[in-house]
Amino acid sequence: MDAPGPGTPDDLPPLVDHHCHGVLRHEPDPGTFAGFLSQSDRPPAAGTSFFDTQAGFAVRRWCPPLLDLPAHCPPDDYLARRRELGPAETRRRLLTATGIGTYLVDTGLPGDLTDPAETARAGGGTGFEVVRLEALAERIAGAASGSEEFLDGLGRAVREAARTAVGFKSVAAYRHGLALDPRPPGRDDVRAAAGAWLAAGATRLTDPVLLRHLIWLAVATGRPLQIHTGFGDPDLRLDHTDPALLTGLIRATADTGTDLVLLHCYPYHRQAAYLASVFPHVYADVGLTLTHVGPRAPAVLAEFLELAPSGKLLFSTDAHGLPELYLAGTALFRTALDSVLGAWTESGAWSAPDARRVGAMIAAENARRVYGLDEPGDR
Amino acid sequence: MDAPGPGTPDDLPPLVDHHCHGVLRHEPDPGTFAGFLSQSDRPPAAGTSFFDTQAGFAVRRWCPPLLDLPAHCPPDDYLARRRELGPAETRRRLLTATGIGTYLVDTGLPGDLTDPAETARAGGGTGFEVVRLEALAERIAGAASGSEEFLDGLGRAVREAARTAVGFKSVAAYRHGLALDPRPPGRDDVRAAAGAWLAAGATRLTDPVLLRHLIWLAVATGRPLQIHTGFGDPDLRLDHTDPALLTGLIRATADTGTDLVLLHCYPYHRQAAYLASVFPHVYADVGLTLTHVGPRAPAVLAEFLELAPSGKLLFSTDAHGLPELYLAGTALFRTALDSVLGAWTESGAWSAPDARRVGAMIAAENARRVYGLDEPGDR
Amino acid sequence: MDAPGPGTPDDLPPLVDHHCHGVLRHEPDPGTFAGFLSQSDRPPAAGTSFFDTQAGFAVRRWCPPLLDLPAHCPPDDYLARRRELGPAETRRRLLTATGIGTYLVDTGLPGDLTDPAETARAGGGTGFEVVRLEALAERIAGAASGSEEFLDGLGRAVREAARTAVGFKSVAAYRHGLALDPRPPGRDDVRAAAGAWLAAGATRLTDPVLLRHLIWLAVATGRPLQIHTGFGDPDLRLDHTDPALLTGLIRATADTGTDLVLLHCYPYHRQAAYLASVFPHVYADVGLTLTHVGPRAPAVLAEFLELAPSGKLLFSTDAHGLPELYLAGTALFRTALDSVLGAWTESGAWSAPDARRVGAMIAAENARRVYGLDEPGDR
Repeated sequence: MDAPGPGTPDDLPPLVDHHCHGVLRHEPDPGTFAGFLSQSDRPPAAGTSFFDTQAGFAVRRWCPPLLDLPAHCPPDDYLARRRELGPAETRRRLLTATGIGTYLVDTGLPGDLTDPAETARAGGGTGFEVVRLEALAERIAGAASGSEEFLDGLGRAVREAARTAVGFKSVAAYRHGLALDPRPPGRDDVRAAAGAWLAAGATRLTDPVLLRHLIWLAVATGRPLQIHTGFGDPDLRLDHTDPALLTGLIRATADTGTDLVLLHCYPYHRQAAYLASVFPHVYADVGLTLTHVGPRAPAVLAEFLELAPSGKLLFSTDAHGLPELYLAGTALFRTALDSVLGAWTESGAWSAPDARRVGAMIAAENARRVYGLDEPGDR
Repeated sequence: MDAPGPGTPDDLPPLVDHHCHGVLRHEPDPGTFAGFLSQSDRPPAAGTSFFDTQAGFAVRRWCPPLLDLPAHCPPDDYLARRRELGPAETRRRLLTATGIGTYLVDTGLPGDLTDPAETARAGGGTGFEVVRLEALAERIAGAASGSEEFLDGLGRAVREAARTAVGFKSVAAYRHGLALDPRPPGRDDVRAAAGAWLAAGATRLTDPVLLRHLIWLAVATGRPLQIHTGFGDPDLRLDHTDPALLTGLIRATADTGTDLVLLHCYPYHRQAAYLASVFPHVYADVGLTLTHVGPRAPAVLAEFLELAPSGKLLFSTDAHGLPELYLAGTALFRTALDSVLGAWTESGAWSAPDARRVGAMIAAENARRVYGLDEPGDR
Repeated sequence: MDAPGPGTPDDLPPLVDHHCHGVLRHEPDPGTFAGFLSQSDRPPAAGTSFFDTQAGFAVRRWCPPLLDLPAHCPPDDYLARRRELGPAETRRRLLTATGIGTYLVDTGLPGDLTDPAETARAGGGTGFEVVRLEALAERIAGAASGSEEFLDGLGRAVREAARTAVGFKSVAAYRHGLALDPRPPGRDDVRAAAGAWLAAGATRLTDPVLLRHLIWLAVATGRPLQIHTGFGDPDLRLDHTDPALLTGLIRATADTGTDLVLLHCYPYHRQAAYLASVFPHVYADVGLTLTHVGPRAPAVLAEFLELAPSGKLLFSTDAHGLPELYLAGTALFRTALDSVLGAWTESGAWSAPDARRVGAMIAAENARRVYGLDEPGDR
């Protein structure tokens, strides 16, 4: 499965990681490190370890050799060696091994994280920003003296962001769930909701009217809008993240010229692939999913590729905090693509040139086209 | 995997395609041809092609050799050769290679399509009709002068259809979704709904009372009722097509003596298989699904066969418009059955005689029994 | 796949079957026997047999050799030999071959079934009781003269059961569905619901207030609470058994110190694995599922292990009525574990020591820890 051959990822262009995050600038303590291997926001259950997850096994498989250790060495040995090398050297070693050429970094997460340029530089690539709408709104709200000022400032900020960022991201799935009224909210409703939110202190934004307002502000810019769907931290409710719940919004945005990219999608990735197959402006992303299912990445990627047209699936790592997650995400993606397309080529279901061509589309070309990365101008 | 052996489909009887449609009588232009490879009702996204779908790859794998071209030749070459041969010869070559002996044709789709006898004749088989309830209602409504006349005519038409058609089909999934009140609607409600629908012009029927009325009219005839579930054109909402939403209707019809056949089912095919496993009068169908998942057909068929009892799964292609979809659908079904049952036989999980027996049941015998195809009389 | 090797179940400790039932003390007639192979509560459809299910094929694969017959012999031969040997000898032969060391038996099912000690003795293991809450409530209600006496008796009975039983079980999924208000019901609501239920004859308990009251009574004891999720008899509605519907209850119980074990889970096992991955007190179980998917057990187990941390998945057979279901359940579990972990070890995704370690965790150690089976005292 690892031998090069027709249709294998040896032919892949530099990857475009169209959805990722910064990594820690400092060295994490062991508990913090392990916490990044899980989507849980609590300590592991007594008698269990976050290393005993597919993300943990994947990190232990792929990363130690780059730090001069044997694959699957004990976590403590790995963490000791990591401390020895320091965060900058660890980052450099891991990121340069990913094969990522372009990083589209969601800058909306808190913490002492590398920014897009810094992240990309460590990996020898180019970085762009993706603006998280809810974080932007929360920042603007913190500086606004009233709802009129907030709404004006927000509209301006979204339009300005569209000039430099390559896209936007909505985490409405976490804040309310995806069963949102698909219509743009009316001006009065938005004003009332903004007033109420500001009066309540403008902390974590969960108001559905404002979440919809953000989505429609972003749609109006024409930049691709990434939408979190499927699993994630436990502040979401899984059954409220099925991308099929977005059908109304998808229909409502069909003629806007703006593309929607459904992130992660698992365990509703077949639903996401269906949506990508019938709506021209909808795309699906392997995201968080491949990293967290480890050796099942080929099976899950194949499920995506049941209905998702070749031109509609995008690669990302959703790596966050640890450069290890970049390496594990890309290694799992490459081997999964190799395994899936290789098997289809071998059985005669696909031709080798088609497999090669589709591999390059998923790895980079679809993202380059959707985000306009090859266009002249501010890119 | 392709070598004949115990339990492989070499032993299969002529297939019964229990749910399919006519094919175009005329030669389609390239855009029309490609459109039949997708469930989308819009042009493909810029930079993408409907040939880059699993249905597209499957057609390119299986069909060119029958038109004297190499598998996976470029779409343009294939379309040129097709034009050269003309629609009748293309149809004949492709359909005679399917191994289908019996075609159960849903005649409710518009367009210049071959009728059941014509379709079957091209493939050297026998054709029967399946009557699509909503299309029947829309036709009757067009000729009726009032709701009383409409309802009388509809009742008569359904009873008459039951004398010649082998079954009925409901597309309530497209028109309303499957979360319907499971009870037969009251006479007054039906009359009111019919009046309102006729007054509004009696176009596309979406009224849930009338959709239920159609279902119960069909159930009363005793003929098997096919129900669209799962994915399809984007005028359905995927999460409203989960066959589990039919649980109430399934319970309500359990003692009527009428069988329900859940079509397509994906991505809710495990749910459909469960329903087929616990309700004697419920059957599941691989339908549209296998064609559109291409090399994943073995995996998806295996998922059907997790819970679906051997006597409860039916084969169909849901082919529509293109004879290519008949060939791809049967080729994928045969190779999937071969692969799945072959692997189970080889591992010792199933005996070879059982695999052979079950293969024949799914390919033909279950449908022959459910639709009464071997019964004397009007069949 | 069956050859011993690193990371294979040859290294497994005696299994802990953390959720199972008694088996029939008497010899069942053929129809009764076949009925236990299906979750249906009706006879099979005309022309079909409950032996033509994956559970039927699995029983025919694994059990005949232990009764001196060839694998896959005809059902009639098997049943004849079974009658010849008698229920006690059949039970002994089959249960001693399971490798189960500990049986956690849900005693809430009716019928002439072996009790925990009797079940375990036949297999040479140790038996413990799991108390089904709804059955307990129905028993107490039958003897109570009023709602006050009922509620006092119920509270006492749950507390007493917690002293001897290893855990509780809720079948709210069957009685109402899992979309329950997650909060403990108020005292007045409970009293009113109890009064109404007793007045109505206190038969099958389906009142959601009382179902919640039972759950919270059990949670208060600190004993693990098993919750039926996913497929089962047709008195449940499948889409109301998605464990994601329990998210509210899971959040509400997060700080109680009581563990929740999601049983069976299929076809929502990826959802269950997600919940187990983000909530420390939530566990998932392969249960009923592996037995009923037969040769698909490796694929389904692998799907569980996409997100479920190694320390969060438990083994059970959910065997009921037939000792054959114990043997099929354990054989399928062992071969599935062997196949899945073996493939991951071979590809380098996991190390052999990790695979061995995780195999033992799922087979026994997680259950020993969750149910406190190694603790001194009343265990």
